[in-house]
Amino acid sequence: MYAQPVQRLIAELAKLPGIGQRTAQRLAFHILRASEEDALALADAVRDVKANVGLCEECFNLAEGPRCRICEDERRDRSVICVVEEPQDVIPIERTHEYRGLYHVLGGALSPIDGVDPEDLRIAELVQRVERGGVNEVVLATNPTTTGEATAIHIAELLRDKTTVTRLASGLPVGADLEHADEVTLGRALAGRRAVSG
Amino acid sequence: MYAQPVQRLIAELAKLPGIGQRTAQRLAFHILRASEEDALALADAVRDVKANVGLCEECFNLAEGPRCRICEDERRDRSVICVVEEPQDVIPIERTHEYRGLYHVLGGALSPIDGVDPEDLRIAELVQRVERGGVNEVVLATNPTTTGEATAIHIAELLRDKTTVTRLASGLPVGADLEHADEVTLGRALAGRRAVSG
Repeated sequence: MYAQPVQRLIAELAKLPGIGQRTAQRLAFHILRASEEDALALADAVRDVKANVGLCEECFNLAEGPRCRICEDERRDRSVICVVEEPQDVIPIERTHEYRGLYHVLGGALSPIDGVDPEDLRIAELVQRVERGGVNEVVLATNPTTTGEATAIHIAELLRDKTTVTRLASGLPVGADLEHADEVTLGRALAGRRAVSG
Repeated sequence: MYAQPVQRLIAELAKLPGIGQRTAQRLAFHILRASEEDALALADAVRDVKANVGLCEECFNLAEGPRCRICEDERRDRSVICVVEEPQDVIPIERTHEYRGLYHVLGGALSPIDGVDPEDLRIAELVQRVERGGVNEVVLATNPTTTGEATAIHIAELLRDKTTVTRLASGLPVGADLEHADEVTLGRALAGRRAVSG
């Protein structure tokens, strides 16, 4: 019913995650109404990202060259590797300004039900990095979910005799109140309780 | 924090309506993970739609050439013009297969609060089409909303002595039940009641 290029744009937009047919239609009509400049900026940004962004050959974070900005940065502490599931998990950790080591991006979490096995993640590459030496600590920062925990446990086993392995603390988020905390989080907070100095 | 092409893609996606920063980020990472082919298909679809789809010079519907497929179709009844707010409103009317006339796309609805005045819509062009002659009926199919009604009333006034002006019926949607009908719709259904033949 729509002109063929419009139908095609709606079909391409509807392939994006969380974008249904109606939303795709709304976005397509927005693009049709937008200025030539704005629409081409979007098209170019998509092309550009595919042409110029790949994965770091060392840590598999996003990179504009063979290695990412963090691996290239001489000031980072090369004796610590923080293991995350996806490239977007690097950002919140960097924002804390608490971490000065390197990263290792697995590309997901173990989930046998979804067919994600150890060989589908970059776990062997992590073990190789550790075996090359000079790594004093591996911080497991996979998500505090069933799959993230399973992944952390699996990696911890593999690295047990090779280096110190740590895991991000689980507990109450800062600013939360006890009354509304779920029991799993509260249980973790209790199990991980620390002595108060003072 | 992200590589510059990734930041740029997130920024461009976030300009789309209903797409916030977090959704834009999610879509950008999907595009990063997608195959080269899929990502370029999206970029090309955006370019193609801007390059090849414009507005019909007669009715302002979407068109791949100077005039849209409906205006070009010799079998359409040129004595009736159906007035709609947006190009996407043409589709549901075409789907009914009840209408064989032409269209006129206003490009929105009157809304002084949002700064949409008669000169922002293609109302003057509609009046010109009617004044050129041969139009026996103008069907006002703007939305049954405050702005759509205001637009219909405004156009009806302008065309009063020039042609017959009709408005889509308001009433209960087919398949609805009375119990759950809102009072405005039910009021309209009552006011528009018809004699039953038989």
